[in-house]
Amino acid sequence: MTSFVRNQWYVAAYGSEIGHELFGRTVCGEPILFWRTEAGEVTAMAEHCVHRRFPLSRSPSRLDGDRVVCGYHGFTYGPDGVCVSVPGQRRVPRTARLASYPVREQDAFVWVWIGERDRAEGTPIPRAPWLDSPEYTTVRGMEPLAARYGLLVDNLLDLSHETYLHGGYIGTPEVAETPITTEADETSGIVRVSRHMDDAACPPFYARSTGIEGRITRWQDIEYHAPCLYLLHSRIAPVGAPEPRADGTDPGAFHVEVVYAITPETEHSTHDFWAVARDFALDDQQVSTFLADNNRTVVLQDVVALDQLEQVVASEPPGTQELSINIDTGGLAARRILARLATEGAGSAEGAGAAGTAVTR
Amino acid sequence: MTSFVRNQWYVAAYGSEIGHELFGRTVCGEPILFWRTEAGEVTAMAEHCVHRRFPLSRSPSRLDGDRVVCGYHGFTYGPDGVCVSVPGQRRVPRTARLASYPVREQDAFVWVWIGERDRAEGTPIPRAPWLDSPEYTTVRGMEPLAARYGLLVDNLLDLSHETYLHGGYIGTPEVAETPITTEADETSGIVRVSRHMDDAACPPFYARSTGIEGRITRWQDIEYHAPCLYLLHSRIAPVGAPEPRADGTDPGAFHVEVVYAITPETEHSTHDFWAVARDFALDDQQVSTFLADNNRTVVLQDVVALDQLEQVVASEPPGTQELSINIDTGGLAARRILARLATEGAGSAEGAGAAGTAVTR
Amino acid sequence: MTSFVRNQWYVAAYGSEIGHELFGRTVCGEPILFWRTEAGEVTAMAEHCVHRRFPLSRSPSRLDGDRVVCGYHGFTYGPDGVCVSVPGQRRVPRTARLASYPVREQDAFVWVWIGERDRAEGTPIPRAPWLDSPEYTTVRGMEPLAARYGLLVDNLLDLSHETYLHGGYIGTPEVAETPITTEADETSGIVRVSRHMDDAACPPFYARSTGIEGRITRWQDIEYHAPCLYLLHSRIAPVGAPEPRADGTDPGAFHVEVVYAITPETEHSTHDFWAVARDFALDDQQVSTFLADNNRTVVLQDVVALDQLEQVVASEPPGTQELSINIDTGGLAARRILARLATEGAGSAEGAGAAGTAVTR
Repeated sequence: MTSFVRNQWYVAAYGSEIGHELFGRTVCGEPILFWRTEAGEVTAMAEHCVHRRFPLSRSPSRLDGDRVVCGYHGFTYGPDGVCVSVPGQRRVPRTARLASYPVREQDAFVWVWIGERDRAEGTPIPRAPWLDSPEYTTVRGMEPLAARYGLLVDNLLDLSHETYLHGGYIGTPEVAETPITTEADETSGIVRVSRHMDDAACPPFYARSTGIEGRITRWQDIEYHAPCLYLLHSRIAPVGAPEPRADGTDPGAFHVEVVYAITPETEHSTHDFWAVARDFALDDQQVSTFLADNNRTVVLQDVVALDQLEQVVASEPPGTQELSINIDTGGLAARRILARLATEGAGSAEGAGAAGTAVTR
Repeated sequence: MTSFVRNQWYVAAYGSEIGHELFGRTVCGEPILFWRTEAGEVTAMAEHCVHRRFPLSRSPSRLDGDRVVCGYHGFTYGPDGVCVSVPGQRRVPRTARLASYPVREQDAFVWVWIGERDRAEGTPIPRAPWLDSPEYTTVRGMEPLAARYGLLVDNLLDLSHETYLHGGYIGTPEVAETPITTEADETSGIVRVSRHMDDAACPPFYARSTGIEGRITRWQDIEYHAPCLYLLHSRIAPVGAPEPRADGTDPGAFHVEVVYAITPETEHSTHDFWAVARDFALDDQQVSTFLADNNRTVVLQDVVALDQLEQVVASEPPGTQELSINIDTGGLAARRILARLATEGAGSAEGAGAAGTAVTR
Repeated sequence: MTSFVRNQWYVAAYGSEIGHELFGRTVCGEPILFWRTEAGEVTAMAEHCVHRRFPLSRSPSRLDGDRVVCGYHGFTYGPDGVCVSVPGQRRVPRTARLASYPVREQDAFVWVWIGERDRAEGTPIPRAPWLDSPEYTTVRGMEPLAARYGLLVDNLLDLSHETYLHGGYIGTPEVAETPITTEADETSGIVRVSRHMDDAACPPFYARSTGIEGRITRWQDIEYHAPCLYLLHSRIAPVGAPEPRADGTDPGAFHVEVVYAITPETEHSTHDFWAVARDFALDDQQVSTFLADNNRTVVLQDVVALDQLEQVVASEPPGTQELSINIDTGGLAARRILARLATEGAGSAEGAGAAGTAVTR
């Protein structure tokens, strides 16, 4: 048994990564072959040829129209994974087919389902609509992480680390000092962690992108949809600017939607997709370049730290004790939900708990 | 228990690799020290000093005439592995000797026996006489393979992969399309796979070396002597050329003897010896250079593919299913023979089956 | 259970390695953080933050005066390992403290105790007073060894290897040829191996540093304090020079104190501290440079050999046989003492054997 939560949608790639070319990526330990048909549909099937297990994503395997030809002995498959041709004989064995995976494109991501097939349709894919909305400009990337995905979940649900690990980029003293509000919805598998700073220093990340020169009101509202999607609704406004209006509009503030998709590759490695969408300076290429460079730097600071941490955790006996404090409330809630989902092998619809337990300390 | 077939002869090296110098090579997990005496005899003994296990093939270990001097504390051994001198005392302990291995030179190869010593003499070494015959010119090499030897056996017994993995070198569509005839002689441990193409494209490998410009008759007659020696008798002739004569001569065709020695190094790595002997253009250095370069390229295509495949196979659960078809008949027969030989820890003479089962599909 | 002897003092570093900076070093599998307070005291505490196990020796963890600030979330610790500040709340959990280790500075080394705390005080630290004596000049270094520490103990207790592995540096034929006297004091855990050569070639190491041109009297008196400290009292004099006087002075000879501290890092790696102290040419920088370069070369010859040997030993089945002879008497005695100390989890004071067993052969 692995620790993976199987009956959930995972981000496998950005849609732009998948073209009419063979593309292999491992999701939750399953090696999957992705490619886009000539009509533009994304397909997902097992990556290894049924014959002698050759990886179909590797040269000289190739696409021939909408067929995948294995580079070893020429077994040939259609977009549904069914084998249509084998070498040296006319008859194709009936069982010759690659497992295919449910796959969807949504919000600039390619989502894949590795669990029980009949549960895919009924399980909603969480949304990150900013990523392909014309009202936002997005910069983004993906960094491979040589660490178990739980370490990234811990990291993102406790932003007090910004002050220390990302000081001079996105961290200021107020982030670590300001208490948080945590809300864990066991039923839907969503954890919310909020930290509202009324009067805080403006870190370079926001100062240079928004042009604000003084102190700011800074809201960090995290919304983690276990296991894969992490949203950070970030609101920045000069101190004294008006609050959001009753109708939801908020013209006095700058909004940044920070999106992470956290996809386990193996038990000890993770695909770390990150995107930063903003509702200001939409056409300003300098701001885009600055935010892309700056956020990649921040992500790589996490990557270095978490890769080191993986080495520590992997070298210590399993039960080694940690000490948790208030800032960890969100992360601990996420761990509980992930453990439950992994144990149940179950989707979010099966949660039996009451809808939401507010934890404020 | 390992999967190695122990009571068989293995190729450890080309004879030309072993001079009056210490040379270490691991065969079926056994680290062996080879060197040639001043009289020119090849010796084979355990590679690690009996005293503190220092590897005798490594500097500053050295040969002193026909004695090996350990580079750590100076234990000194004769060509039979018997210790003749130790430091700090005159008396040499009677048990101080390196295990020695039966070793033979034949057909340009150095063969070694790692199994029960008293069975070596009675077990014939399979022949590849072309490699040092004046009627043939040979090009050859050895590539280390980071894959279990069974993957190379599979590879070589199913040449339909030439069409896909080696297209543009030795593969043409006819290889994959033409049915094979398979014959497995369980008693002698020999598998024969034949594919006779009457009218086939001539791949560059043969076109440039023979000078044939049109289509060819191409015969591939494989003779695999489990576990170590693989022979591919390759006959190429212009379409319409006469068949071989009743007396065995065949002046209308070109003959290439492709020889592989498949020697397990460890459970997951293999010494891949390859040689290409031809009976034409004997003194044409250009043809030699072309065939050497071209065949090495082909071997390295296999190495890359099999190294990848080893990663796949090693990462999958042991029972992961493969799907076999007609082209795999030879490979499956080889697997059965290898499994039997490994289980028996037995030589070829112990096979109890009837002499030969023809399998044609 | 590991093979480590825990209730003993180990050299963690040279005192000069530890400044007012975070310094991580693993001793017997325990990752330890060292730093010097502003007052100059060396501290030793567990290297991983109690919160989420981040390594406190790694950037961006940092010292703030006499406090360690974790680079991940800012947990802050005093020199005693007690946590004094955590992010997001005023109250510091009472259990938030890093394990601290007894630590001492003596003879230029920083010694650490990883065993039962209440036994540290009563266990003496063995001495190597030459290293910071004004009557000696010392050159020194530390080389990481990718081999279990027992292989280095074997190596140093049998100097006959000098003739083979270090020929041309410190070895001459007489070292391997001359018999040894061995004395193992099971109670104190000390092994003594002596080899007195009355008329020996003078190896370059001593010829160039002492200026002696002819043959020498060469004494090698080893004193190994299991597990960590190895002393080689080396006496060199021209043949015919007077013996040491009754009062212990020895003006006719040159004395070199070769000191090794052998500190296991993990089960398969070792910190190899080496120092060479001399009582002659005290201010001669050329002699210092020569001895430093030459001894480092010798140590690296050992490192290369032992790293290879570790590969051999790790690849062989645990019970693989070795053959021991007279020169191994010291090494075998050391192994017995180390095995006893590891089994008892006990310090040297607990030995029950008679005080000293002379073994001469």
